[in-house]
Amino acid sequence: MIVSIISVGNELLNGDTLNSNAACLGQRLADLGLAVHHETCVPDDHAAIAEALLTALATSTVVLTIGGLGPTRDDLTRTAVAQALGRPLHDNPAVANAIRDYLRRRGVAIPAEAVRLQALVPEGASVLPNPNGTAPGLWCDLEAGRAVVLLPGPPGEFIPMVDDEVMPRLRARLPAALAAPRVVRVAGVAESVVEATTLAALRDLPPLGLAYCAKPGCVTVRLTDPLHPDLLNAAEERLRQAFQTRALPAACASPAEHVGIILRQRGLHLATAESCTGGLIAAAVTDLPGSSEWFTGAVVAYANAWKERFLDVNADLLNRHGAVSQPVVSAMLDSLTRRYHADAAIAVSGVAGPGGGTPDKPVGTVFLGVAVPGHAQVMRLDLPGSRQNVRERTVAMAFVTLREALLTHPPTPANRTA
Amino acid sequence: MIVSIISVGNELLNGDTLNSNAACLGQRLADLGLAVHHETCVPDDHAAIAEALLTALATSTVVLTIGGLGPTRDDLTRTAVAQALGRPLHDNPAVANAIRDYLRRRGVAIPAEAVRLQALVPEGASVLPNPNGTAPGLWCDLEAGRAVVLLPGPPGEFIPMVDDEVMPRLRARLPAALAAPRVVRVAGVAESVVEATTLAALRDLPPLGLAYCAKPGCVTVRLTDPLHPDLLNAAEERLRQAFQTRALPAACASPAEHVGIILRQRGLHLATAESCTGGLIAAAVTDLPGSSEWFTGAVVAYANAWKERFLDVNADLLNRHGAVSQPVVSAMLDSLTRRYHADAAIAVSGVAGPGGGTPDKPVGTVFLGVAVPGHAQVMRLDLPGSRQNVRERTVAMAFVTLREALLTHPPTPANRTA
Repeated sequence: MIVSIISVGNELLNGDTLNSNAACLGQRLADLGLAVHHETCVPDDHAAIAEALLTALATSTVVLTIGGLGPTRDDLTRTAVAQALGRPLHDNPAVANAIRDYLRRRGVAIPAEAVRLQALVPEGASVLPNPNGTAPGLWCDLEAGRAVVLLPGPPGEFIPMVDDEVMPRLRARLPAALAAPRVVRVAGVAESVVEATTLAALRDLPPLGLAYCAKPGCVTVRLTDPLHPDLLNAAEERLRQAFQTRALPAACASPAEHVGIILRQRGLHLATAESCTGGLIAAAVTDLPGSSEWFTGAVVAYANAWKERFLDVNADLLNRHGAVSQPVVSAMLDSLTRRYHADAAIAVSGVAGPGGGTPDKPVGTVFLGVAVPGHAQVMRLDLPGSRQNVRERTVAMAFVTLREALLTHPPTPANRTA
Repeated sequence: MIVSIISVGNELLNGDTLNSNAACLGQRLADLGLAVHHETCVPDDHAAIAEALLTALATSTVVLTIGGLGPTRDDLTRTAVAQALGRPLHDNPAVANAIRDYLRRRGVAIPAEAVRLQALVPEGASVLPNPNGTAPGLWCDLEAGRAVVLLPGPPGEFIPMVDDEVMPRLRARLPAALAAPRVVRVAGVAESVVEATTLAALRDLPPLGLAYCAKPGCVTVRLTDPLHPDLLNAAEERLRQAFQTRALPAACASPAEHVGIILRQRGLHLATAESCTGGLIAAAVTDLPGSSEWFTGAVVAYANAWKERFLDVNADLLNRHGAVSQPVVSAMLDSLTRRYHADAAIAVSGVAGPGGGTPDKPVGTVFLGVAVPGHAQVMRLDLPGSRQNVRERTVAMAFVTLREALLTHPPTPANRTA
């Protein structure tokens, strides 16, 4: 099955909106063992949408479009696709009722014409219900097993529709069960080292698809061979042996998730004290459902006065060493474990930029501290890149470092708390 | 000038990496008054890259490629483009020296062949220096004023090269100064209302390009007409009059930025108390450079024990009303202004999901409080969508609401602090 994606919207082309929908869809398809053959993004323009559709259909089994199904005059996907496929659009009273129900439940009123436009269905198309918005998805089967699928653009509508409606239908059409790619995530190892280790570990196995994706703190190795699940199993096993504890458990998508699993298992609670990351570490923790079981809270002490008053950092320490220093971060860690009763702790102070750098402590200088029962450490990081980069890499390193500290300091009778 | 973008990389198609580079490039081009005609994303495959290039060249003046210039075996853009254009690749000793210099400065060693591959230059192409990485950019002028430009994929290399090398060259090629699009951002108004107001305000002006982009809390209206700057000025003026204080000042990219400007002007300091947003509001604040001038800190009180101990929420209030309630958020606000000496404050407690909902307070129920000198308010929000959506919309609403409170409560002699 050859799959192509067409994203529609000026806001994507002019960079106002990041195309996270296409990335999400690509992930879901990869999980099914399907690769996206071609992805294109076109403006809110009738001819451009129709041309992209016909081009994609020339080589694809399934074409998925994203966006342009709303009620405003720059929402053109429905009419462009219907015209390109030669399918007239018909009013669909059931869809119109569903839209009116949705609007009534939310206490929103829109013009009747806006309802009617979103309830138009191309002849012969199936309707994919949209419980999270107004415009439904549309599934148009064509000759020779091909299909065009129209999906709404708002991510809160798009993602549930992909998961609940599109993926089950695509899975049912796959000729046989294709083996999904295997994924091994490696924490805290450089991409080039991951690649070298991977190639060495798989040397005497038959060739299979290998791809690497490096993000701060975590490199993902993706193994693909849709027809040979045994080979995939063997290769994954080799990689997990080669990387040992650097490999995350298969169920963990990130070092942060693994930290959460370990903390929950050991009955430990985490708190953070953040300066340059400004709450990003706590935000990443609380992005994980269920984190309330192992995360108590954070003190974002952006002003030095807060570090003094609420994190017990001595004014003398701040004056002598500066807020970005080993002793200050060490004091922040102490405050978390003593005053805030944290079992595990992360503390951070750094120069994220663009201003604030000095010759001794240029932009990118970050002191990162972690504490687990029976152990505390503070390290200096020298991070490259923009303010956003420095902050993101600090967050990544915080979880990588806490994870290592937890793994190298397992519970002992002396420090067992649960 | 018709511009197209080709992004190269399996990691983009399978969703491992968000295509932030293409969005960034689209923004820069829009600022020049240029629209991206077509954007496509192809796998690490020689034939796919060549085909996408020839397709794009059939309709474009300038084709920009992103990625695939590195040294590994899946970096194929350089050879695919050279072959498609019929330009042999030549070793370039100056480029090889620059790469070796870069590696020496960073204390990194890579094989000589990896240096040589990245120093290959298509015949007749200009080299765009890359001070932030190894592979340089390549600018290939073709007949009839057309050009193909190859750019590296890592954002830390790509963005500076776009700003320092690509944009100046493109600007120099524009026949006359094109008027950049005008942008009016409207805070806290539904997209359909923004559209209706816009159409009414511009009714008696000549037609011009109009596009809307809705994000939680803020709708962007983009006005385009590259040849008629006076019309753009008149239209922008009409919109700003129509939306009054709902329109953000031109220099503000978001309600949060405007909040920062107002707080700095009035000499006020903000603090936040967050439960379900888990630090996201503080993280959004500290994402703005210079926020240390007006932001002091945040208490992320995820556990109820933290709300009691560190935000002075009475245990009795928690028991009677629950953590997600008007009285608890009101107490959190009080604590910020009293114990933490905040002039302006945001407090939030809600059910982000997926668990934790009750019939009275289903997933998406959020109590949001804001305080400014002389005024405090707590409102209930009922937000749709996933955990991520609920959190993001809460953050957006926090800034929209604080902004409105600041604008409707200007400094008075009684509450002036600066």
